Amino acid sequence: MQTLTVIKIGGNIIDEEEKLNSFLQQLADVEGHKVLVHGGGKLATRLAGQLQIPQQMVEGRRITDAETLKVITMVYAGYINKNIVASLQSMNCNSIGMCGADGNLILAKKRTGTEIDYGFVGDVESVNSELLKLLLEQHIVPVIAPVTHNGKGQLLNTNADTIAQEIAKSLSKFFNAVLVYSFEKAGVLEDAEDDNTIIPLLNPDLYESLKKSGKIFAGMIPKLDNAFAALHSGVSKVIIGKAENLPGLLNGSSGTSIVL
Amino acid sequence: MQTLTVIKIGGNIIDEEEKLNSFLQQLADVEGHKVLVHGGGKLATRLAGQLQIPQQMVEGRRITDAETLKVITMVYAGYINKNIVASLQSMNCNSIGMCGADGNLILAKKRTGTEIDYGFVGDVESVNSELLKLLLEQHIVPVIAPVTHNGKGQLLNTNADTIAQEIAKSLSKFFNAVLVYSFEKAGVLEDAEDDNTIIPLLNPDLYESLKKSGKIFAGMIPKLDNAFAALHSGVSKVIIGKAENLPGLLNGSSGTSIVL
Repeated sequence: MQTLTVIKIGGNIIDEEEKLNSFLQQLADVEGHKVLVHGGGKLATRLAGQLQIPQQMVEGRRITDAETLKVITMVYAGYINKNIVASLQSMNCNSIGMCGADGNLILAKKRTGTEIDYGFVGDVESVNSELLKLLLEQHIVPVIAPVTHNGKGQLLNTNADTIAQEIAKSLSKFFNAVLVYSFEKAGVLEDAEDDNTIIPLLNPDLYESLKKSGKIFAGMIPKLDNAFAALHSGVSKVIIGKAENLPGLLNGSSGTSIVL
Repeated sequence: MQTLTVIKIGGNIIDEEEKLNSFLQQLADVEGHKVLVHGGGKLATRLAGQLQIPQQMVEGRRITDAETLKVITMVYAGYINKNIVASLQSMNCNSIGMCGADGNLILAKKRTGTEIDYGFVGDVESVNSELLKLLLEQHIVPVIAPVTHNGKGQLLNTNADTIAQEIAKSLSKFFNAVLVYSFEKAGVLEDAEDDNTIIPLLNPDLYESLKKSGKIFAGMIPKLDNAFAALHSGVSKVIIGKAENLPGLLNGSSGTSIVL
């Protein structure tokens, strides 16, 4: 099986042009098939501010009313997505920017029945892995913005971590899928305040014992539970660490590699 | 040869949700391969106004400084493009939204050496017709926003009429390519003020004689010269008329069909 690397980059790196371009050059140099999933938090917040659209965050999730969805669609699927693609093209890395509506890539369901009304927020229902496979076989890198659709004409704001995970899972039937989460921390740390305490390799036994000894801080637990769920669904490795050193993350010299 | 219909819709219809959805349903019902190219003038102007970015138009062309390019990328390649795609998906018409950077679809050159500095405006250099063919063969409708790139990381604002024409020309080697320009007028008129004077069929002889008799008004001449240039480059028919009646335009009962 050929290796496929699915990389999720978060908002911080997107806000700094130099860091982003250095990351994109590293991505362009990764061998084999790859998919990039990006977020883009701060730019959307800034534009919403300029347009006087009040923003409300609950547990890191953006409450997405109709006007906020418009901002997110413009910033994520428009400005950020197309500029990333144009940069990759300049590095001779052929890429195609997509949101979940494009080619029916990611079908989602509007989140309902929760205590909080998140507005136009969608949970992933299915991924069109055949289309991704077709593009990858043409040596095109899909660059995916975290906007999905419900199949009834409605765009939905969707968590980029979840999209990366669902894509890696769905493509694991065709490829040896490696999922990389770039992150503000250097990896999974024994001491959350000390970047020098990275755990280089995490497996279920070590995870259980670290949880029991209270060494994994609460905010990491949902992320790691998701990582192990991805591994149980066919993903071969999950890597967590800083985007600044993508080759290091991929060769295991940087960040935390999570395996079964 | 299979028929391919390349349709360009202008700004007016995009501003009216009901009209746009009715047009998109007609597009979804068109048989055979199709490509949609859209503009989106008024929404970009409105957003630029809200963000207090002064806009300057010269002969219908937008002077595109860096801030205006950002607005255009957000509105054209983000908001409008993705909402059109989501609507088409709800009509069981699989489509994919793209700008010229995506898949290296449209390479352009920044316009220089003109008396007026248009800013980040690009003139089309080449179209990746192989990628379009691949998507069309998968029964996916490409939906194209008028933003291109220069291959060096720079996005460029590009005239949607020109994009539609270049796409039709480049695909005419694979398909019997029909190019439809939707327009605020009902077609080419003998009397510019009277929608009942449509010329249903225009060929080079009739065009010359109408020009000589002064019956073609000046604003139409560049459009028609472009239409004939497209025909001389392999496009089999150019149709000009109102988007409200797409089946009529395609079957010749509405608008003006231009042929050699």
